[in-house]
Amino acid sequence: MTHAEAVLAVVETDPGGRVLGHRFVDPTAAILSGAELAATRGDGIFETISIGSGRPQATTAHLERLVRSARMLDLPEPDLDGWRRVVQDVAARLAEHPESWVKTVWSRGIEGSGVPTAWAWAEPSPDHTDARTHGIRAVVLDRGWSTEVARTSPWLLAGAKTLSYGPNMAAKREAARRGADDVVYLSTEGVLLEGPTSNLIVRIDGTLATPDPEVGILPGTSQRDAFRFAEQRDVPTEYRRLTPRDLDGVDAAWLISSVRHAAPIRAIDGRPVPVDAEFTGELNRFLVGRTE
Amino acid sequence: MTHAEAVLAVVETDPGGRVLGHRFVDPTAAILSGAELAATRGDGIFETISIGSGRPQATTAHLERLVRSARMLDLPEPDLDGWRRVVQDVAARLAEHPESWVKTVWSRGIEGSGVPTAWAWAEPSPDHTDARTHGIRAVVLDRGWSTEVARTSPWLLAGAKTLSYGPNMAAKREAARRGADDVVYLSTEGVLLEGPTSNLIVRIDGTLATPDPEVGILPGTSQRDAFRFAEQRDVPTEYRRLTPRDLDGVDAAWLISSVRHAAPIRAIDGRPVPVDAEFTGELNRFLVGRTE
Repeated sequence: MTHAEAVLAVVETDPGGRVLGHRFVDPTAAILSGAELAATRGDGIFETISIGSGRPQATTAHLERLVRSARMLDLPEPDLDGWRRVVQDVAARLAEHPESWVKTVWSRGIEGSGVPTAWAWAEPSPDHTDARTHGIRAVVLDRGWSTEVARTSPWLLAGAKTLSYGPNMAAKREAARRGADDVVYLSTEGVLLEGPTSNLIVRIDGTLATPDPEVGILPGTSQRDAFRFAEQRDVPTEYRRLTPRDLDGVDAAWLISSVRHAAPIRAIDGRPVPVDAEFTGELNRFLVGRTE
Repeated sequence: MTHAEAVLAVVETDPGGRVLGHRFVDPTAAILSGAELAATRGDGIFETISIGSGRPQATTAHLERLVRSARMLDLPEPDLDGWRRVVQDVAARLAEHPESWVKTVWSRGIEGSGVPTAWAWAEPSPDHTDARTHGIRAVVLDRGWSTEVARTSPWLLAGAKTLSYGPNMAAKREAARRGADDVVYLSTEGVLLEGPTSNLIVRIDGTLATPDPEVGILPGTSQRDAFRFAEQRDVPTEYRRLTPRDLDGVDAAWLISSVRHAAPIRAIDGRPVPVDAEFTGELNRFLVGRTE
């Protein structure tokens, strides 16, 4: 990948997190120190926001989640309005692309400096048509944690969107090793959680259901918009406890995220899952077409 | 911190991991891309190697552990001899300092490039006299995992030294919040594991004991050398299962790591632990004085 169409903005903030401004730089330029804690400790947070023809989508929900993650990591609180301006300005540069994305990164900064580092990286989205139409194969993998850890052991950062995604990347490699495309994590109690970079939605008896964020997962921005879409069409929605046994009875299931949007699961651990092409297509048109 | 005395070497490798060379650059220079996976995903590995008057210590043990971590993350295998030359060359630049350290970083590289990124950051060590002589206060914190996950769920990367240290940094902040200096992790079975950036050694009835790495922890390089030191003095050593109850009966305990070396634990969860100043002093002189 040459990143020829990438857009990179270095964001200047004060130590308290207020955005002072941003400047666009050559995306091939080096911008980070060898003592940058994002790179040496994964010590920071991020959001990935989809952009439809230059308009960032669900920006407020993403930035509010960035604030929530910042609190969980004792980072200075990101300046929501300042970041919104950055995101909008970056997104505008990709207006010619029907789908693109921007990643906002907020790290603890150069070790010893006490000043966070912030940047926004954006580029046109890869073509996800195949995943959206033909679906993906998922495997269920142990996450090693109880659903209780978010409450009992907040230092584990369950439910924060951190830069420490090494295990999530490893889980995706394990999926590939098993001939699959993606992962659904399972708690030690046998409760379905989320994907490494997505939320799980299933449809059971006509109701869309997703795990409650209280089990220690990220509250999904696209999942929330998918529920909004469903409610507009009088499809009931609910947050509930789901187990692998529930997957046997679903009439559809998706992993949903901000760039690939709703990817129907066509097989889980090798067992076929029905794909509702019509509903999925409408949902993805809705997600791609969001104007805020 | 100004990093005025820091040394930074950018390491050039081929995609397979062979070190082609390295060049020293201004440590205040930016060297990493905004799409660097070390920084956006914590997707890479590292080692921190202590340097005594310009001589890197336990280099082979560290680099062998780097290779082990690389295998766990499906990264190209680091070139041991190539890295040894980098470490020696970096260390030589800090020869005037009795104690310094170098961090070797090996990441998956710029997203989409398929080429790892490698660098070595070094600087004089902070003064750890206080921790080494007066000791540290530790708290026991849940790690959220069973001792079995390293075996059952390798994608969780338990026992790999990854750049995804966000939770380890959060655990240290939790310790500070509780008025302590450091952490001993506990498994869900109630088994003592390791510190976020150290290994635990206790002395019970005259025997030095440390948790077996099979419980899903990093095999300690300094811990191994401490055992070597003990064995030279006819102090018995063993790898064994330790629980918080064992801490009540210890006649000494340490968190041991490559820069602070052996820090005696003087209190755990607020309860006093005996400090053996004489043994600790001799052990630290041994560790500081290693010439390889």
